[in-house]
Amino acid sequence: MTAVLLACGINPEKSILFQQSQVSEHTQLSWILTCLVRLPRLQHLHQWKAKTATQKHGGTAGLLTYPVLQAADILLYKSTHVPVGEDQVQHMELVQDLAQGFNKKYGEFFPVPKSILTSMKKVKSLRDPSAKMSKSDPDKLATVRITDSAEEIVRKFRKAVTDFTSEVTYEPARRPGVSNLVAIHAAVTRLPVEEALRRGAGMDTARYKLLVADAVIEKFAPIKREIEKLKMDRGHLEKVLQVGSAKAKELAHPVCQDVKKLVGFL
Amino acid sequence: MTAVLLACGINPEKSILFQQSQVSEHTQLSWILTCLVRLPRLQHLHQWKAKTATQKHGGTAGLLTYPVLQAADILLYKSTHVPVGEDQVQHMELVQDLAQGFNKKYGEFFPVPKSILTSMKKVKSLRDPSAKMSKSDPDKLATVRITDSAEEIVRKFRKAVTDFTSEVTYEPARRPGVSNLVAIHAAVTRLPVEEALRRGAGMDTARYKLLVADAVIEKFAPIKREIEKLKMDRGHLEKVLQVGSAKAKELAHPVCQDVKKLVGFL
Repeated sequence: MTAVLLACGINPEKSILFQQSQVSEHTQLSWILTCLVRLPRLQHLHQWKAKTATQKHGGTAGLLTYPVLQAADILLYKSTHVPVGEDQVQHMELVQDLAQGFNKKYGEFFPVPKSILTSMKKVKSLRDPSAKMSKSDPDKLATVRITDSAEEIVRKFRKAVTDFTSEVTYEPARRPGVSNLVAIHAAVTRLPVEEALRRGAGMDTARYKLLVADAVIEKFAPIKREIEKLKMDRGHLEKVLQVGSAKAKELAHPVCQDVKKLVGFL
Repeated sequence: MTAVLLACGINPEKSILFQQSQVSEHTQLSWILTCLVRLPRLQHLHQWKAKTATQKHGGTAGLLTYPVLQAADILLYKSTHVPVGEDQVQHMELVQDLAQGFNKKYGEFFPVPKSILTSMKKVKSLRDPSAKMSKSDPDKLATVRITDSAEEIVRKFRKAVTDFTSEVTYEPARRPGVSNLVAIHAAVTRLPVEEALRRGAGMDTARYKLLVADAVIEKFAPIKREIEKLKMDRGHLEKVLQVGSAKAKELAHPVCQDVKKLVGFL
């Protein structure tokens, strides 16, 4: 379902919110798991520290326990493998700890899910290659969206931060800007980095930027068309959400009932 | 329902657990409220501090956010008045803050519930009148249970800690032991403290203990008989829980739907 929604330009987080809201087992299991994790374990997570570092009155208890709700999203379906970005690896370790902790206390029940990392672990911002590309970045030029027009995509790559060397090389530590372009190029064409470099051989970074922009436009075009088609059909999208929630509930309900029996609620 | 369950010797907390588990709106609203409260607000609550002071690895996130689940238990029914013991007054302030915070952010919705304190605010332990009487006290003599036999109740009051003065007076600060007996006497007979004292006039504390024990036995007797009758009928009790949960769900569901609409989940 997430894949369908992504393709529809609907934020998958929004679809997870919808599912959590329709499938009440998510918050129920989350509550039970919250009772199995000690406060310092959550306070030591990078994302909590990063997101609350600048907040004068501290983060909300919801932000702190959000990774536990994520764990419930995963464990409720007895998931065995979870595709994640590098920034979620630490949260997956929490999921694994919670599964193991639950199994130790109540008997073998949850599979301990494994992270699946893609080769493209982190797409960097086009404006600051030390930061990750983020849809909430205030600098609109930093992030390429599937729904961007071809002209917008070209413009964003043209303005991408590189350095004063014109040659195209892949040296993430020394030349993060141009290396990010190479990584994006390799990812959207599904080519190894070496082959992407070969295609950029002899070009200066200005020309290479246009090559990468073209590859991104080509990759996004059919998805963008599908999004535009689906957006016209709100009824269909709502049905996808409803049918998906019903399917999810069917899977989640018996697992949640088993958990309640194991912990002694039923 | 809680009253019925209390009378059945079923821990009302257990019945709330059952209700939270059957009426999934409790954890759903709790999750939403958890996103409205900052971590330090929960870390400053007396009970959290008291319960985690001795824990080497810190308390669980569940213990920390439990007062928020209690707030959901209250707000989900748009409750206006909540009878509480003195130890829960601080948690009620949190409930009030959450109701006001929600109303401020999403528009007037929840009534701000008031605490109702009984005149008998805190029953003290019979073995240590500086502590509250608690069903989880490891010293069995500290706590009188509705289900205790008359002999057990007499024995517990006989062994109640008082002091070296034999006269019966009500001076909670200077003579907490005997004052606790007077307070219990007044509470179970529904008499003012002065009248309880008048009935103990001229007695030494040893004799007064028996008078209080008799008053407690008399108060508990019909409740104890009802408990014994109901305990024989497990089917009936389970039906009470089921019917109660169905009634609760009927009230809770529309409130939770309204909340989801207000916060933008639906």
